[in-house]
Order: sequence, then structure tokens, then C-alpha cells
Amino acid sequence: MNSHLKEDTRFSGVLTPVIMPYNSDYSPDADRLIRQCEWMLSQSVGLAIFGTNSEGNSLSTDEKIELMDRLVDAGIDANKMMPGTGCCALTETVKLTAHAISLGCSGVLMLPPFFYKNVSDEGLYATYAEVIQRVGSSNLRIYLYHIPPVANVPISQDLIERLVRDYPSTVVGIKDSSGDWSNTKAMLERQWDDFRVFVGSETFLLANMQNGGSGCISATANVNPAAIYELFANWQSEKADDLQAELNEVRNTFSKFPLIPALKQCVAHYAEDPDWARLRPPLLSLSSSQNSDLIEKLKLLNFNMPGLKDNSKATK
Amino acid sequence: MNSHLKEDTRFSGVLTPVIMPYNSDYSPDADRLIRQCEWMLSQSVGLAIFGTNSEGNSLSTDEKIELMDRLVDAGIDANKMMPGTGCCALTETVKLTAHAISLGCSGVLMLPPFFYKNVSDEGLYATYAEVIQRVGSSNLRIYLYHIPPVANVPISQDLIERLVRDYPSTVVGIKDSSGDWSNTKAMLERQWDDFRVFVGSETFLLANMQNGGSGCISATANVNPAAIYELFANWQSEKADDLQAELNEVRNTFSKFPLIPALKQCVAHYAEDPDWARLRPPLLSLSSSQNSDLIEKLKLLNFNMPGLKDNSKATK
Repeated sequence: MNSHLKEDTRFSGVLTPVIMPYNSDYSPDADRLIRQCEWMLSQSVGLAIFGTNSEGNSLSTDEKIELMDRLVDAGIDANKMMPGTGCCALTETVKLTAHAISLGCSGVLMLPPFFYKNVSDEGLYATYAEVIQRVGSSNLRIYLYHIPPVANVPISQDLIERLVRDYPSTVVGIKDSSGDWSNTKAMLERQWDDFRVFVGSETFLLANMQNGGSGCISATANVNPAAIYELFANWQSEKADDLQAELNEVRNTFSKFPLIPALKQCVAHYAEDPDWARLRPPLLSLSSSQNSDLIEKLKLLNFNMPGLKDNSKATK
Repeated sequence: MNSHLKEDTRFSGVLTPVIMPYNSDYSPDADRLIRQCEWMLSQSVGLAIFGTNSEGNSLSTDEKIELMDRLVDAGIDANKMMPGTGCCALTETVKLTAHAISLGCSGVLMLPPFFYKNVSDEGLYATYAEVIQRVGSSNLRIYLYHIPPVANVPISQDLIERLVRDYPSTVVGIKDSSGDWSNTKAMLERQWDDFRVFVGSETFLLANMQNGGSGCISATANVNPAAIYELFANWQSEKADDLQAELNEVRNTFSKFPLIPALKQCVAHYAEDPDWARLRPPLLSLSSSQNSDLIEKLKLLNFNMPGLKDNSKATK
């Protein structure tokens, strides 16, 4: 850790791509989203809104701007927000990023432009550099978003090195959703100055912390926040291996289903709030047999979401 | 051909994803775009603006709406326009599509939502159905856009069949940019009622016409429009094989370079208008050695763009 940088300007810990509730006409349901964010914060989990598992890429730029405004207006702490702002068009990325920073968000999670494939590092560098210059704020903190299985546009270590060298106080971290621990480890070994490496699944949380990483940004923290945070807070304790093993059991259960609909079904079930199970096309809800199967498997693990229902009711 | 459908409501022939000129700040250059569109129309080539090779996915929804307005205001015939309107978010797809139809565009070319991968046919069907219902216009004509090498979200034959069955006067064609002739041929063999099959490269134009297809939507029509149109107009003549062979030579030359920057460099060279060579990040221009190499190779083919320079000057 470097003393010349304020600790609180960079994220560490557990964040989640907050799942996105929809009304019956598929418009975003800001009130339910606010409640889920409050619930996450009460569990020490930060808000990577508009991530992949938030269906962030199924929302328009205007919808995302309106939702950010609604969250901040509702009193959600912008310091705990790391919105996904990377779009295909750099003008949209600039618009979303500038808005997030104007609201006081401590950082943004930025996909590379993901439509064109086999793009050069030079071209991706030019995109990030252009966005940084256009946003033009010393408060901007970018966490790169490496998710080759979905975006199909990887962020190479050489590209990160160049961005960190040229924009050391702006390009401050990465979420590695490659699912490839060797890639995460290679980044950690580079030891870029106070660079924050987050894994995209809690499956790698203990390994990440043991190798100098900063935490995880994981979709399953929507449903299992306390247990994931507990491992983060206790990774140096004797019980860390056991905590990791317990996390893996839950994660493995969800991985037997399409992840986003399974997370939403889980919240719908434990909050007794069936509207949560809705997705926006092209994604669809689980079938009713998948629903039953999921809940059955979770019961076998004695899985629960203590406090969720109260939180859900409190602000309804 | 069905007599109960007006011939002029569906496209056939040669169209091109019109290349997108940029100003030095990477804003779209509407004036140069208007000139390129006028040039294309003078060569009997229709306007598939905002296609992949138009860098359409590097533009924001607002930029695309403004450009459509500028083109129509400049007198470009909306009947000849098939704008690309498929975005990741269905709300953006609806907005762009509705605007295109309100301007009188004869059709739109619609990518599936392309961020999420391994999406079900059911989910893609739900997206297209939702867009059709929300746009809610009997003037809407959708040409599906199948481009698995870039979008990584294919449009299956079963999905097309279902859409054509449920929306026979709306889902009226496809651009097949798979580069896989067996896929094109399989669609043609289905013989959906007056369904228009366009190949994504003139390499397959003669084969497509011989098997009941409707033409091509090809990026190289930006630079070689007259020759491509000549084959379309004469595909049943004795010289068709020779015309196809000549087209292939030009196409093969361009395929030795990154296609979009090569097309722009070609126009920049033959129009003596260097600003045409600019791309928006993440895409970049050719290097100067690639530039020279391209022009050298084109000269060996006696390639030329007759009339382009006059057209370019006439409206400057």
C-alpha cells in the first residue's frame, strides 16, 4: 500500500453487480433496486451497479442515468457505487462515466468497446485515453473490466501496464472475470503501484487475498453477502479455508443454473416477492421446474437470507 | 414472388453499409456522409447505414438519430435506406427503429442483442417480438442481421422460421454475414414466403442470385459499386462468371487488410480527401506502409473510382 494515496479513494472488499428488478413492462423498477442496494450496504457489500449480472447491457444509457439519479436521491452512498459505464460507443461511455463521477461515485467499472473483435491494444488504449481526457476529472477512478467469455474483447496485461503508467491516478484497478486464476496471478505479480485486483467470483477470493489482491466483485454476493464478506474480513484467520469451502458450495449450486435468473429467483423466493424473478429479454426467467430444483438444492445447504425479508418489507 | 405484396415494399439488389466519415474530434461528419450516400445512389447502390462496416456500433443512439435526420433533410431518399438499428438494449433498438420508420425508411437491419452470449432462441424471439410490438407500425420491415463472427450471437433457422410465421409482413429478410455459403443455401431452400436473402459479401452474389436470393449488402460496394451492381443486373447473362471473377479480385485485395480502414483509405485516395481515412476508436487507420501497399495492389488491378472525385467536389 502506498502512503501517498488516500486509502479511501480506491475500493477494496466485496462488491456485487446488483441484480436489476423490472416492472411488468420491463422498465427498471427503481424502488426495488434501492431496497436491494440498501440490503447490500447493510451487509458490507459495495454496489457495482450495471454489471454483466445486473443485466447492465440490456439497459439504455438514459435508463442508467435515471437509475443512478434515483439511487443517489434515495440516499444511497455514491462512495459505495462503482457503476458499469463501458459501452460500444465512446460517446456513450463518456456520457455515463461523467454522470457517475458528477454524482460522486468513487469509481466506474469499464468494459472495453465490445462489438468489434480482434481490436488492437493500440485501439483499446486510444479508447480509454479518449474517455479519460473527455471526462477530464481528477475524481475519475477506472476499474478495467476483463471478461473475455462474454465481451470477447480481452484486456491484455501489456495494455493495463501502459494505461497504469500513463494514467496512474485514474486507472486504478481491474475486475478479472476471465475465470482463469493464472491470469489474475500474473497481474498480481506485476505489482503495479496500489493497483486493485478484484476477482469476478468468490471462488478465487482467498487465493486473491493471499496473493495481494483487493477482494471480489461477485454476482452471488446478491444472495450470499454476509458469508462472502466474512471470508474477506477473515482471510488471514485459521478458519479461512473452511469459509472458502462453504462459499464454494453455494456458488457451485448456482452454477448449475443460468446465473442471473437463478439469483433473481432466489431473491424472489426468500423475500416472498415474485416480481423479482422477471428478466428483460433477451434473458428469460427459469422454468418452474428449475425454480423448484434450485430452491431444493439451496435447502439441502441450509441456505438462508437472514434479514432480507425484513429489509424488503421495511421500505415497501 | 407473391402478387399480394407490393414489390417495392421489400429490398432487392445491392446495398452497402455506408462508411462513416469523422471530423478531427471523432464526431460524425454529416456532410461527407451525405456525399457518400449520394455517390452510392448514383451507382444504384442502396444505403445500409450504421452497419458493421459503417462503424455503426461505435456511434451512440443520439448520434445515429441526428445523422438519419441530416440525411433525410439533405434530400437522401429514405426509401433507399436500411439503417442498422439493433442494439444491446431493447429500449434503444425500439427508439432507433421507430425513428427510422417515422422518417420513411423502407426497412431496418437488426442485429440481435449482442452482449449476452449463449442466449436461447426463445429469448431472441422475445426480443424481436417486443420490438415489433413496441414500434407498432405496419410500415416496419425488419431484415435480420446474422453475423456470428462479430456479434457472436447467431440467428438460427428455427428462430427465423418462427418470426416469419408470426410476423410475415414485418420480418421480411436477412443479411447473412456468416461467410458460410451452406448457411445461406439452407435458408434459400426453406423458401419462406417472399423472404429476401442478402449475402454479406459480393463473393457469394452470383450463387445467391442463382439460388433465389435477393442481392448483397456488401462493404466493398462503398468502393466498387458499379461493378457489383453490374453483376446483380446481369446475373443471368453469359458474362456473369467473368463479372463474378473480377469482383472477387477486388474483394480479395481488400481482404488482405483490415477492411474498414482499407475502404476509408481507398476513398481518401481516389477522392483526394485525406480526412476520409479517419476512424473512431477502438478502430484505427491503416499504417502508411499499409496505405501504400493497398494503393499499389489496386493499381495492379487497374482499379478506379470513376466519377467519385467529381461527386466529392460537386457538393463540397
